[in-house]
Amino acid sequence: MIDLAQIKALTFDIFGTVVDWRGTIIHAGQRWGQEYNLEIDWAAFADAWRAGYEPAMAQVNSGALPWTNIDAIHRMILENLLDEFNIRGLEESTKAHWNRVWHRLNPWPDSLIGVARLRQHYTVASLSNGNVALLTNMAKNAGLHWDCILSAELFKCYKPDIRVYQRAAALLGLEPQQVMMIAAHNHDLAGAKAAGMHTAFILRANEYGPNQKTNLSAAANTDISAGNFSDLADQLLYEKNKKA
Amino acid sequence: MIDLAQIKALTFDIFGTVVDWRGTIIHAGQRWGQEYNLEIDWAAFADAWRAGYEPAMAQVNSGALPWTNIDAIHRMILENLLDEFNIRGLEESTKAHWNRVWHRLNPWPDSLIGVARLRQHYTVASLSNGNVALLTNMAKNAGLHWDCILSAELFKCYKPDIRVYQRAAALLGLEPQQVMMIAAHNHDLAGAKAAGMHTAFILRANEYGPNQKTNLSAAANTDISAGNFSDLADQLLYEKNKKA
Repeated sequence: MIDLAQIKALTFDIFGTVVDWRGTIIHAGQRWGQEYNLEIDWAAFADAWRAGYEPAMAQVNSGALPWTNIDAIHRMILENLLDEFNIRGLEESTKAHWNRVWHRLNPWPDSLIGVARLRQHYTVASLSNGNVALLTNMAKNAGLHWDCILSAELFKCYKPDIRVYQRAAALLGLEPQQVMMIAAHNHDLAGAKAAGMHTAFILRANEYGPNQKTNLSAAANTDISAGNFSDLADQLLYEKNKKA
Repeated sequence: MIDLAQIKALTFDIFGTVVDWRGTIIHAGQRWGQEYNLEIDWAAFADAWRAGYEPAMAQVNSGALPWTNIDAIHRMILENLLDEFNIRGLEESTKAHWNRVWHRLNPWPDSLIGVARLRQHYTVASLSNGNVALLTNMAKNAGLHWDCILSAELFKCYKPDIRVYQRAAALLGLEPQQVMMIAAHNHDLAGAKAAGMHTAFILRANEYGPNQKTNLSAAANTDISAGNFSDLADQLLYEKNKKA
């Protein structure tokens, strides 16, 4: 059993953990389809947009691509998707607006209340591969309140590079073990663990749609596994209250 | 007359502009004096602590000192002050607690409501030479809500180096002219202006005590001059409502 009393800050993965990228993009796409008279499988469109993201970040981390923030990566992938899905003739302002759908992603139903409860007891910060402007705009749009926006953009390398977690803890003035990383993805938590952080897994069983096969349970070395943010708050605050 | 409609974000200087460092440190010092039976002129102590801060930052910007964050600069100055004021034998934990008084500075009376009003219409961010942990802890302690914590620490150079303002705007995904820097100090606003930002001066006539001689009025090229944050909100939101 870990000593939860040492934990001062919680850092949150965002895409998929706090917000529902797939559902938001499908919904936005359906509106775009009506507006531009497009017959598109928007779930496939959303999945393809997301699928391009990990390889691009891996190229940045390997040095094959120079530093490129997520807004720019999303835009590179979008240009390919417009070709692939045969969407022609969009104006620049429309493409920019579509690309910024990632700034307008909707939280899962438990995210706002869960983060708000945890914020009463911990410093809560984003720790996302999303860029600072994206995370700031998203929080403002969604009504999420972070004590601090932390982003891979500040470190010019992407999770799960352990430097991201180490430098995030340092910016918070904490040792890694005083920080708990919260994510719906085991590879993210593995990076945090390697950097010395504590970890909490959140189950988002439909993040990738109804046929999701991965991240349906926590890896064995995860400190806490929770069904959603309310469950996480119950577990962390129950332990905290026992100590008090 | 500037076109205020282009402004999307407000960046705030913190020490002296949003929080009352001198009053908070004098008040904390009086409590320390009672606890440790010290006869100290705490106003002189506060002023000396603050006076060491600009030269140390200038040394970092010139390259004479390697990157050193404000917590560490405050601690270096504190060690000198303990000597100078003949305060002996403090334990490490006490020194660390005293040094973190800068994380617990109290806002001026108009700061919370002023920032809250402005936040409904703009992205609001700190842009301080204080380090990220200091700013995050201060906001949480004071009940200040920023959309984003921006700090010179992220750029490893101090205001008024123009790179701080330029990079802050870039992290917000904005051009400098879409950002308004808000400060009680003309040298800070001069740096922001040189970087292409808009500027607002806030009068803090007693920041340096009853005999303050500097920063009693805005420099001629300042876009807005306000008596406090309520006045600033009145001026910005009146202009914004006229446009709407």
